Amino acid sequence: MTEMKAVGLYKYLPASDPECFVDVSVPKPEPKGHDLLVRVQAISINPVDTKVRAPKDQVEPTPKILGYDAAGIVEAVGEAVTLFKPGDKVYYAGAINRSGSYAAYQLVEDAIVGPMPQNLSFAEAAAMPLTTITAWEALVDRLGIPAERGASKGKSILIINAAGGVGSVATQLASYFGLTVIGTASRPQTEAWTKKHGADFVISHRQEFLPQLQAIGFAEGVDYILCLHSTDRHWKNMAEAIKPQGRIASIVENEQPLELGLLKSKSASFSWEFMFTRPVYQTPDRIKQHQLLETAAQLMEQGMIQSTMHEQWQGINAANIRLAHQQIEANQSIGKLVILA
Amino acid sequence: MTEMKAVGLYKYLPASDPECFVDVSVPKPEPKGHDLLVRVQAISINPVDTKVRAPKDQVEPTPKILGYDAAGIVEAVGEAVTLFKPGDKVYYAGAINRSGSYAAYQLVEDAIVGPMPQNLSFAEAAAMPLTTITAWEALVDRLGIPAERGASKGKSILIINAAGGVGSVATQLASYFGLTVIGTASRPQTEAWTKKHGADFVISHRQEFLPQLQAIGFAEGVDYILCLHSTDRHWKNMAEAIKPQGRIASIVENEQPLELGLLKSKSASFSWEFMFTRPVYQTPDRIKQHQLLETAAQLMEQGMIQSTMHEQWQGINAANIRLAHQQIEANQSIGKLVILA
Repeated sequence: MTEMKAVGLYKYLPASDPECFVDVSVPKPEPKGHDLLVRVQAISINPVDTKVRAPKDQVEPTPKILGYDAAGIVEAVGEAVTLFKPGDKVYYAGAINRSGSYAAYQLVEDAIVGPMPQNLSFAEAAAMPLTTITAWEALVDRLGIPAERGASKGKSILIINAAGGVGSVATQLASYFGLTVIGTASRPQTEAWTKKHGADFVISHRQEFLPQLQAIGFAEGVDYILCLHSTDRHWKNMAEAIKPQGRIASIVENEQPLELGLLKSKSASFSWEFMFTRPVYQTPDRIKQHQLLETAAQLMEQGMIQSTMHEQWQGINAANIRLAHQQIEANQSIGKLVILA
Repeated sequence: MTEMKAVGLYKYLPASDPECFVDVSVPKPEPKGHDLLVRVQAISINPVDTKVRAPKDQVEPTPKILGYDAAGIVEAVGEAVTLFKPGDKVYYAGAINRSGSYAAYQLVEDAIVGPMPQNLSFAEAAAMPLTTITAWEALVDRLGIPAERGASKGKSILIINAAGGVGSVATQLASYFGLTVIGTASRPQTEAWTKKHGADFVISHRQEFLPQLQAIGFAEGVDYILCLHSTDRHWKNMAEAIKPQGRIASIVENEQPLELGLLKSKSASFSWEFMFTRPVYQTPDRIKQHQLLETAAQLMEQGMIQSTMHEQWQGINAANIRLAHQQIEANQSIGKLVILA
């Protein structure tokens, strides 16, 4: 059996522990059915990677391979694949319940893979899939914003933590859909990054939202809120800042009970967005992830959406992955950190 | 100044107290701006009436008039009114922050009034507005179900407490929109009532939902849930019974914290529906209440929606109103209780 290089874990350890990731050699998988076998060229690191790695008392008998973002080249395809062929360049996030992208090769189901934007490098492309899927699903499928250029003119959205990975894409997409975008940031560097991506206004997430919104002309608050930071911490401020009949979506699970009743008099809505819902539950509509990645690739090719890559490193190995996890956990990220194979 | 008869309250007392409502004579109001003055012909009683009346330490210096459902005849109109003219028959719920329908005459803003269905009596029409607005807004504006006949074929909705006032309309509307409707009921009488309104299946709200749904062929649960009964009591069952990416709406405010995180892995949504949001916040889109009442009137005239009146009494007076509140609080209602002027 052919072997391949990968970065795995046996134990769930703090990122400060040199043994948290291990360079391993594992069997190279073979594609069947709807799977593509992809030769990974670049990956990016997301907060979810560190959540999966978080310390717990569990031991893996064989190396567990994380990683939920990649760009690469299709090496081989299962017999049921019609969307792609060997040689195609692709980008994808994959599924959290399958082996990940910290590896030389990876299997991924065709329905959740997109054609790589032709104008981007592998590194630039690898920065995008997980955050693009998350931002798109949050805006379009959860908040119900029409996925058409300029269709939401006159509507407003507050994006909390607009300079992070998802925020950097969500700001661009929301702006493309015609929304007035108010991003939150707390440092000059993140404020500049957020404006670069098309935010009309930047406010602070360290102060109450509604007074800041009122100061820039949103007397009654905003039509939509996308929370990409502690849902607990921002809950009351979101309840105040959302307009009557407004819609809030969040990707960050709450740790304490939330006062859902604060939204009652406004008939407001709250949606969770978790980009692995479609692949993990194998929902019949998961082809929509392929479709949105394809549409997003076109928008990138047209220059409407920029890659949110902020740093690129060389070498998918245990040392780099460990450093990357440390950096993500420091919670100061701007855009995306990419590692080239 | 001309006087009119009304039923008012000075103190907030239990419905068992003979003084909880008082027959009074108060100044007859005059319409200005966008207000209609309506001669009330029939009213219906809703759970919200009893919540407003609920005991508390507060005294009204002048009689407070409740009542949030009426059918009647336009007596006079303000100078800005174009939608209606004197003599028109109308039906409406009104606004919770204005004087209500337990009165001979009432002022109401034109934008939230509908033309009375021509095939209904005043009593049959008075049963409908609050529950129709609530059911329509919950289904269409909160859950995002297209308001077109048959458009949601293949989709399913669970309506918890389908035989109540809102449930009786929601069942008919959801069925008209093409949804497969599973209503909950717990007595033979409410089960029959629910089936009469078009429910495809009836299950019990005294047992877990998912096993009952699986037994009738909904292996993964339902696309939508409309909760018209204790949100607290049904929360976990709803979280289990909703499909991935499904949407839940409720009209009953929770009393305990809810585990919102139960919906996270499914990327599910939760919406509140409170029909007074539009009139109380004076949202720019409140004309939609006029429009939906007009559309619903047409559906009633076409026989697509039946009046949900279950009982009618004669005489809008303190004694009848008090009895009606007692009956609503007994929490065994089927359809609507109407009182004729």
